[in-house]
Amino acid sequence: MVDPRLSIVNKRLAMVENIIAVSSGKGGVGKSLIASTLALILSRMGHRVGLLDLDFTSPSTHVILNVEGLRPEEKEGIIPPQVQGMRYMSIIYYTRDEPTPMRGEDMSNALIELFAITRWGDLDFLVIDMPPGIGDATLDMVRLIEKINFLVVTTPSKLAFETVKKLMQLLKDLTMPVIGIIENMKMEESNFIREKAGEHNIPYLGEICFDRQLEASIGDVDKLLRTEFAQNLREIVLNRLRPRP
Amino acid sequence: MVDPRLSIVNKRLAMVENIIAVSSGKGGVGKSLIASTLALILSRMGHRVGLLDLDFTSPSTHVILNVEGLRPEEKEGIIPPQVQGMRYMSIIYYTRDEPTPMRGEDMSNALIELFAITRWGDLDFLVIDMPPGIGDATLDMVRLIEKINFLVVTTPSKLAFETVKKLMQLLKDLTMPVIGIIENMKMEESNFIREKAGEHNIPYLGEICFDRQLEASIGDVDKLLRTEFAQNLREIVLNRLRPRP
Repeated sequence: MVDPRLSIVNKRLAMVENIIAVSSGKGGVGKSLIASTLALILSRMGHRVGLLDLDFTSPSTHVILNVEGLRPEEKEGIIPPQVQGMRYMSIIYYTRDEPTPMRGEDMSNALIELFAITRWGDLDFLVIDMPPGIGDATLDMVRLIEKINFLVVTTPSKLAFETVKKLMQLLKDLTMPVIGIIENMKMEESNFIREKAGEHNIPYLGEICFDRQLEASIGDVDKLLRTEFAQNLREIVLNRLRPRP
Repeated sequence: MVDPRLSIVNKRLAMVENIIAVSSGKGGVGKSLIASTLALILSRMGHRVGLLDLDFTSPSTHVILNVEGLRPEEKEGIIPPQVQGMRYMSIIYYTRDEPTPMRGEDMSNALIELFAITRWGDLDFLVIDMPPGIGDATLDMVRLIEKINFLVVTTPSKLAFETVKKLMQLLKDLTMPVIGIIENMKMEESNFIREKAGEHNIPYLGEICFDRQLEASIGDVDKLLRTEFAQNLREIVLNRLRPRP
């Protein structure tokens, strides 16, 4: 039997123009910072943007954006609150920042439920902060969301690339659309990731420098948008994502 | 019904003196590098050491140790191959470095199976590189392995600590023995993690500096053991883990 929630999910997302799933092979590569900052950049450019934090392993966009005291409104579903001019939704509203030792299947059901109840309305971009790696959630999103596009984040490290390689292979096997790969926390010259992306026929979108000031801007959106990190990401958005004006 | 594999697992581990589960709230904090280097340090001190890579989300100890072409021997179970004088076992022997989009329950069964079949023999220390965060695997290890002790790794970052907090709370709720917390990739003076550890009654074991040379030592064990990273970790082992001579 087809999961009846499947048709509801895509109905909920009917008026969302672009869905960008920010993904990584492993944690700690800056995925959440890139997802949050990407959403902010698109929003400040005048687009209608939603940000959805699905990273139940380490939800952190609410810390980055300093979201406090806001709750989604219940009205024939759930309406995400406005944060920095964006519609914002996080799995943390349901885990309440407690340890959540949920089994994989329970978490998977919770994620599907979240999509089934959330009323995004009209959006130009929905940016999703995905859980790291290839788990139940990634598989379900692929199965569930027709319009999904993957944006892959890695660092220059061999260890990060080992896992990104697997994610890229999986997305290829599933014939998923991949926007490209961003190389984050770059500290020195190297073509390693660029070459590997080429070998996998995945567009290399650009690099973002390792920014020591970034930690101090967590929780302060204006400061965050002034960092070199955000400036590098803005260039990638302008040059490579080419959002319509 | 009690899982019949439970008694087998603890029989398999009967001659293992200490089990150290190197854990983290999120990925990318250096957990695998700390687990591998900790095992090497203990081994070079003359202890009998096993290293088990259970991080199916991003297995990387085989890359760090440059393990190639070795396979476990099958003989009334599985005998882990010798690597750098240690017994070495990794989930990667079974996932074959392919994308492994396994469902949580399948992976959980695979991990239990791995414990049930592996013949570690006499060991002073078994170091486990755990998957990051609080998932099925963490819950199963806690349930499965009587002698387990947790060693928690974090970075100074607010975002890493957000997740470590949850892991510490979970371990406390489950009354699990925690050896302490190591603060990795330290770049500047800060007492944030030390204070937070104190609030949670978890011993703060020490800090490891952010080491730009570390990436270049991946795959070269002797170089790795000469890094400042390894030197910092060695001091923590000598001062705080106090292994018997």
